[in-house]
Amino acid sequence: MGILRLGYLHVRVTDMAEARKHYIETMGLKVTAEEAGKVYLKGWDEWDHHSVVLEEGGVGLAKLGFKVQSEDDLNTYENNARTFGATVERMSKGEELEVGQGIRVTTPSGHVVELYNEITYLGNEVGYLNPYPFPRHETGISVPALDHMLIMAEDVALNEKFFMDTFGMYAVEQIRPEIDSPARIATWLSAGQKNHDIAIVSGKDKGLHHFAFQLEDWSKILRAADIFAMDDVSIDITPTRHGITRGTTIYFFDPAGNRNETYAGGYRAYRDRPTTIWTPEHIGRGIFSHSRELNAAFTEVYT
Amino acid sequence: MGILRLGYLHVRVTDMAEARKHYIETMGLKVTAEEAGKVYLKGWDEWDHHSVVLEEGGVGLAKLGFKVQSEDDLNTYENNARTFGATVERMSKGEELEVGQGIRVTTPSGHVVELYNEITYLGNEVGYLNPYPFPRHETGISVPALDHMLIMAEDVALNEKFFMDTFGMYAVEQIRPEIDSPARIATWLSAGQKNHDIAIVSGKDKGLHHFAFQLEDWSKILRAADIFAMDDVSIDITPTRHGITRGTTIYFFDPAGNRNETYAGGYRAYRDRPTTIWTPEHIGRGIFSHSRELNAAFTEVYT
Amino acid sequence: MGILRLGYLHVRVTDMAEARKHYIETMGLKVTAEEAGKVYLKGWDEWDHHSVVLEEGGVGLAKLGFKVQSEDDLNTYENNARTFGATVERMSKGEELEVGQGIRVTTPSGHVVELYNEITYLGNEVGYLNPYPFPRHETGISVPALDHMLIMAEDVALNEKFFMDTFGMYAVEQIRPEIDSPARIATWLSAGQKNHDIAIVSGKDKGLHHFAFQLEDWSKILRAADIFAMDDVSIDITPTRHGITRGTTIYFFDPAGNRNETYAGGYRAYRDRPTTIWTPEHIGRGIFSHSRELNAAFTEVYT
Amino acid sequence: MGILRLGYLHVRVTDMAEARKHYIETMGLKVTAEEAGKVYLKGWDEWDHHSVVLEEGGVGLAKLGFKVQSEDDLNTYENNARTFGATVERMSKGEELEVGQGIRVTTPSGHVVELYNEITYLGNEVGYLNPYPFPRHETGISVPALDHMLIMAEDVALNEKFFMDTFGMYAVEQIRPEIDSPARIATWLSAGQKNHDIAIVSGKDKGLHHFAFQLEDWSKILRAADIFAMDDVSIDITPTRHGITRGTTIYFFDPAGNRNETYAGGYRAYRDRPTTIWTPEHIGRGIFSHSRELNAAFTEVYT
Repeated sequence: MGILRLGYLHVRVTDMAEARKHYIETMGLKVTAEEAGKVYLKGWDEWDHHSVVLEEGGVGLAKLGFKVQSEDDLNTYENNARTFGATVERMSKGEELEVGQGIRVTTPSGHVVELYNEITYLGNEVGYLNPYPFPRHETGISVPALDHMLIMAEDVALNEKFFMDTFGMYAVEQIRPEIDSPARIATWLSAGQKNHDIAIVSGKDKGLHHFAFQLEDWSKILRAADIFAMDDVSIDITPTRHGITRGTTIYFFDPAGNRNETYAGGYRAYRDRPTTIWTPEHIGRGIFSHSRELNAAFTEVYT
Repeated sequence: MGILRLGYLHVRVTDMAEARKHYIETMGLKVTAEEAGKVYLKGWDEWDHHSVVLEEGGVGLAKLGFKVQSEDDLNTYENNARTFGATVERMSKGEELEVGQGIRVTTPSGHVVELYNEITYLGNEVGYLNPYPFPRHETGISVPALDHMLIMAEDVALNEKFFMDTFGMYAVEQIRPEIDSPARIATWLSAGQKNHDIAIVSGKDKGLHHFAFQLEDWSKILRAADIFAMDDVSIDITPTRHGITRGTTIYFFDPAGNRNETYAGGYRAYRDRPTTIWTPEHIGRGIFSHSRELNAAFTEVYT
Repeated sequence: MGILRLGYLHVRVTDMAEARKHYIETMGLKVTAEEAGKVYLKGWDEWDHHSVVLEEGGVGLAKLGFKVQSEDDLNTYENNARTFGATVERMSKGEELEVGQGIRVTTPSGHVVELYNEITYLGNEVGYLNPYPFPRHETGISVPALDHMLIMAEDVALNEKFFMDTFGMYAVEQIRPEIDSPARIATWLSAGQKNHDIAIVSGKDKGLHHFAFQLEDWSKILRAADIFAMDDVSIDITPTRHGITRGTTIYFFDPAGNRNETYAGGYRAYRDRPTTIWTPEHIGRGIFSHSRELNAAFTEVYT
Repeated sequence: MGILRLGYLHVRVTDMAEARKHYIETMGLKVTAEEAGKVYLKGWDEWDHHSVVLEEGGVGLAKLGFKVQSEDDLNTYENNARTFGATVERMSKGEELEVGQGIRVTTPSGHVVELYNEITYLGNEVGYLNPYPFPRHETGISVPALDHMLIMAEDVALNEKFFMDTFGMYAVEQIRPEIDSPARIATWLSAGQKNHDIAIVSGKDKGLHHFAFQLEDWSKILRAADIFAMDDVSIDITPTRHGITRGTTIYFFDPAGNRNETYAGGYRAYRDRPTTIWTPEHIGRGIFSHSRELNAAFTEVYT
């Protein structure tokens, strides 16, 4: 029945103390486990054991994981990946802390993707019996959940095809060199009704452009930007709206230099929604709806 | 692959001129077709031919339709419905204006549900090529899309089972007489990642409690309430938050007396999210998070 | 040059422990001093020593204070009050904790109003040197400041005249029995550019209808209502907009039964703005812009 | 009793047709009069005859006007200006269309300031008898009123002193080269409770940095930025918060190149509020609270 969501990602950070400060005190994630050189975190509205894992040493993405609905999905995706010609291996229970067996696939772009169905259940912070809408005491910007991520690939079209053929995703929006071109400058892919679970942009293989956290709405985007200023977070792009997906956003960096996003709003996608196509002369407005300009750093700086 | 969404509903209205004024000028829906005694409408961000159909004469729900992903789904759901013991019939192309063949199922509660895969494509108002995030000129509260509906049933548990077994929906939230009771006072069911596509509440079979339109966020909820006051719309429940789903809301009536809702926010649901359970002493807060009180009219007045 | 603002009010509370919990933990006011049976409080953006003083025993308003711009203003207002025929007395430095000399006037409605120019300066919580826009750590709904109050009077027109003639206030909005009537059902009076510093509504002399705290905007109104539900605050009127002043609002009660308000937005008033007049058939919409109905309790229940 | 507000300003525009499109269709101002080469405009919540006057030919500020409370104020300010050594002349009724007699003062920075008490009353668009909170049909971003302006001066401290001594304004915020320096890099001056009616920044005499229009709150700021993108308005600074005044903002240019601002929120100022002081190393954050960086164009480009 398919992929539920981007379940977790492991990200390398140069200084764990600084990273903890950022992700725990500013972002408001909660520590759920610690190992040598690793800190496991989750947002207040997530029920699974972890969504973000900090790994000490370096910068950039180590791997990402999609949670699937059933064990059968693992077999399906394993077969699909082999058919596509991708490297796949079985992952045994516990290889990823608190996670059951799964499969580990390497995308054409060299990104390591784990798929799993089982993960220790912790429950969210408001509970499921007569709950309040959010925790009474919040920390920093109080992120409820991981939302999506954007990776870089040298051949976007190939990788888009890989995510569609192997994982059953569909393209919600695309930047193409020309309207009818089969080539892709970037693509936004969904496995469900999120307007993107993962996006792929033209760049160096294995690259991580950013990963994004949900916020409730535009008023929380303002509050986040205000708190980032107080906590001296390096802001890349101040509050604005994306043309692509219509979501409202802030881009910023963690202390190691990994780009983060806070994301709110945007439309609900469906498989029968026509793919929105952007052409190069409108990319600026597609990415940043108000300035209508891409700054060079936005496409060139990533980890 | 299943149900995409609540695609359309037909609602009876006593006075078509007044209903047009409400749904077109105040709600901002667009007319896509007219027949004797019927007006077909859609929101600005919907691409299918219609989502709301007004039928002159009386009040209440005539029928509702779920759009499915493939023609195969129709067979699956037909078989499921028969297995459940429900009345099913085939619907031929064109029986519903601009809609392909489908199936028509009567739920245990007597509601008529049509399922279809094909419907004339019109496209949304901003287009799919380098679009702007919303139309430059908006009418009334400028509803983008139909969101969900709530129907009444004498046996909620039976009807919940019907929607789960037949249509593959899952329960996101429930009101139960006691925590572990198999009985249901109400249930919120999702076919995807919406926190509910349809909800069922204890009441008279065939009843319609309300149908809801999406709005972007809490600021649009305020604007809607302000405009409702200007247009003399009868407001049932002024802007507030639901405990159930966390969405923000206004309830109000169309001129015929059908309850409408504007709905914004709320969490994204997933099939592995634990079902939230509400018990009777907290129902007030579950429905209206701020007043924490159900007014009698809210449960007793419906069409 | 006149009255700066409603500087403070003393309110009686039946249970100081409960009152502290409400005003400190839920409202986020800070304690600046304590005496036997009295707690002095201020909001995070107030610089003067106190704005709300809780007095143990009973319920209702003990007195209120207006801060004036200069010592000369005290003489002017003293003379004005005598000319009007009101009872006035001199207040010596320290009679009101941390407050300089002043005058104490009894309004025709029996309310005790103190005027003062000097009060111990404490400064706000973000400071005045390169400040951030709000404190990094907030408590409860984190009220920045006291905003205005509404008192009851048997003869509203007389008391309106008193506040205008004595204190130089002007009427921003009024409810009149008929458009041209010299009688007043209610009046909103400003000393500066706030759309009201004090309002007077028809009721029992000495009565307190409510006092209001500022919030930044409608999104903070939602958050306040959510937190009130968590803290079990008795909400009188859930989030809505006033027709009068256009401000957005929540009314609620402190544990002793004194009505509080959170207030955001509304227009800026000027002395040359035409007075807005409301007539009885529109009072409902004037007070509550969305429901367009006054509930009886709103006018009959006060302290 | 003093200055009520920035009543009007005359701004030069190179192309009247383009300027009309910008100020009428995008900003939503209404035309109240036209003369050869001049268009008189007001916002929907302004009652006086005009607030913005477009003058065809060139770019930049022609003059500005403060409305005062009484004819006596004119004498006071005339005397004050003479005492200060400024050039003052009497303005006769009708010199400025629909405006009574007044005085015309030239500031040390060479800006022409007119003061007047009388101006033809037109009333706002919602009226003053049982009004709705905003007009049912809005155009573009539907600006309610002119808010403030920022002018350039070679000697900021001298001009600050001029506005304080002559017009009785007070400094709400200042940028100083050092904390205790008598020099000023910039100053924000208020005549009432607005956090600034006029600001002065170091630059060329007679320069206009921007003039600002009120918006209700941060959600309207987003909507304005979205509409600016649709109308191809040149945006200088996308939605953000000012550290100075805490207001939320967008800066953008009219087609002639005059910088406009939309401004929402910010605190209410009082004459006893301590002046907030900013020092050079924090200017970036003072101006743009999120990016914490001044772009060179912001200080160097003006008309």
